[in-house]
Amino acid sequence: MAKKSFPLSKVYSLLEPGPVVLITTAGTERANIMTQSWHTMIEFEPPLVGCVISNRNHSFDILKATGECVINIPTVELAEKVVSCGNTSGLDIDKFHDFDLTPVAASCVKVPLIDECYANLECKVVDAKMVDEYNLFILEVLKAWIDPAMKHPRTMHHLGKGAFMVAGETIQLPSKMK
Amino acid sequence: MAKKSFPLSKVYSLLEPGPVVLITTAGTERANIMTQSWHTMIEFEPPLVGCVISNRNHSFDILKATGECVINIPTVELAEKVVSCGNTSGLDIDKFHDFDLTPVAASCVKVPLIDECYANLECKVVDAKMVDEYNLFILEVLKAWIDPAMKHPRTMHHLGKGAFMVAGETIQLPSKMK
Repeated sequence: MAKKSFPLSKVYSLLEPGPVVLITTAGTERANIMTQSWHTMIEFEPPLVGCVISNRNHSFDILKATGECVINIPTVELAEKVVSCGNTSGLDIDKFHDFDLTPVAASCVKVPLIDECYANLECKVVDAKMVDEYNLFILEVLKAWIDPAMKHPRTMHHLGKGAFMVAGETIQLPSKMK
Repeated sequence: MAKKSFPLSKVYSLLEPGPVVLITTAGTERANIMTQSWHTMIEFEPPLVGCVISNRNHSFDILKATGECVINIPTVELAEKVVSCGNTSGLDIDKFHDFDLTPVAASCVKVPLIDECYANLECKVVDAKMVDEYNLFILEVLKAWIDPAMKHPRTMHHLGKGAFMVAGETIQLPSKMK
């Protein structure tokens, strides 16, 4: 997928609507992928993102050790792979290989982007002091990529137990909000 | 709107998809309403929610002083009022009155619910130690209410600058995820 660099000042517009994301990390043996929905913007620029990653997940250990990850945003075309990544552990399998996802080198971190996702946010951990209590990592987005051809991405939004709301129509209102 | 109590164990399914919410607080003079999108689930049960409320907002001061709020979840039928609440300050106006929203007494907090919203989460601040650095409040949901007639709520999801994605179709996949 041909991507272009995306302004850091607009990263909030990708995460604010609450999409399911695929978080990639790079362990010593292989890269891993985790399906995740518990994230929020914390600051506009530089973009800070709060991400809750349970210490029961393999990605928790890798992220704690390496301090780097990529937040990849999938659309509904990838729904089966998104769920497969959520149903399995990187301790047991190579998710890139088994689910036929394409790793692409990032520019600022030693973690692969997922090529099939329409947007990718390269991140480093900038604050880990809420990790022990809440599994909450504060990430700074260092570099963002987007597929410029994707005008209305049909993102997935988890409703629980494998049910997902798919992004519908877009409306525009006269807002002073950023 | 006739609401019923909603299990705390299922609160994540309301917030995980990333809807715009209306946060109510009760100041000394009057109740206030703030439009907000920067929230994430942190724990399933009791439900913990991380909410970023800028210290430039009137609601920040009230929440810091009282330690209580209600997260109200609107649907697209309320779009104009949602944006109006975001474009104004409770320092200047009474938003319940000016935007014709109906306050209803909560059961666990001294903050009104917004009757027109299809779901309401009564919350108290349980951890404020990230407030100074990140404007991040950790809230515990004490009581949840939902309109049982609303089967497919058309929630709003902010894309920036007054553009909103409206919840579309729901799909179901075979998932082991909660």
